[in-house]
Amino acid sequence: MPKLETGLVQVYTGDGKGKTSAAFGLALRAVGRGLKVYIIQFIKGGFDYGELYVVDKLPNLTLRAFGRGKFVTAKPAEADDVRFAQDAFRLAEEVVQGSKYDLVILDEINVALDLKLIDLEEVLKLIKSKPRKVELVLTGRHAPNEVVEAADLVTEMKEIKHPFSRGLQARKGIEY
Amino acid sequence: MPKLETGLVQVYTGDGKGKTSAAFGLALRAVGRGLKVYIIQFIKGGFDYGELYVVDKLPNLTLRAFGRGKFVTAKPAEADDVRFAQDAFRLAEEVVQGSKYDLVILDEINVALDLKLIDLEEVLKLIKSKPRKVELVLTGRHAPNEVVEAADLVTEMKEIKHPFSRGLQARKGIEY
Repeated sequence: MPKLETGLVQVYTGDGKGKTSAAFGLALRAVGRGLKVYIIQFIKGGFDYGELYVVDKLPNLTLRAFGRGKFVTAKPAEADDVRFAQDAFRLAEEVVQGSKYDLVILDEINVALDLKLIDLEEVLKLIKSKPRKVELVLTGRHAPNEVVEAADLVTEMKEIKHPFSRGLQARKGIEY
Repeated sequence: MPKLETGLVQVYTGDGKGKTSAAFGLALRAVGRGLKVYIIQFIKGGFDYGELYVVDKLPNLTLRAFGRGKFVTAKPAEADDVRFAQDAFRLAEEVVQGSKYDLVILDEINVALDLKLIDLEEVLKLIKSKPRKVELVLTGRHAPNEVVEAADLVTEMKEIKHPFSRGLQARKGIEY
């Protein structure tokens, strides 16, 4: 099985569309090469997303989503949201440090950080102590500067034009 | 089978990572919802990409890549590159206008436009005349202003930080 010689830390952030999709597209590419991929979703657990329905068709791809199926926007956060995010982060630590996966995607972790559901110092520690061969991807808007600093590759998805501002609803199969 | 009520025109452009991956991630989401997806790759034909190895595991996803397996950078373009791009575009017209696919992804078409391998006016005509229910996605850096104007949703993948500038080679399973 091919393994990465050097895994990097990638961040997809910004207010534009395509952060989670880029991570899933990367997962697709990685499993195509026989890499093992683990996707941990913060916040999104309990939501209904199209990609959840095909993940089991892909070999070497594991996905776990944490959350209570409601958008988390409140600051300070509710106890349930904190608990879900903490559980997700504990799993992230285990999966990254276990070195059994080539690519670990922490989807929406930046949002969890922004909402103070998890601790920035702990995330930085995870980034800095990750095994060399593990590729770590962190997605979500509002990535803290410290995370951007610690990452090797950072892409901002920048919204240039968006039809929701003229009233279009999210569409099944495209936005979710 | 669920069908889109309103298909939009999306553009993923910019110098950052994640344009093609975002399109493939979207394809994954769409097929998860039972939508039919057609991906046409400009320029990239003949190249070896990880995602090519799992596409056949996904239902309702068709992919065709055009190109001669060499990066196209020359202006004026070579005759072969023009021919491959023109063939790709003829197929794109057929697939979009045929209305049999919910999501049509024209991967790297912006690059083909930038290199003048295909005609801007023809692409604008395809965008403007697309059937209402078809979602059309155009990827690649250097999207012409006219394409951005004609699109409904435009995301710029902006490179904030990239390790290739410090000499890292593209990695199998991650960059390709």
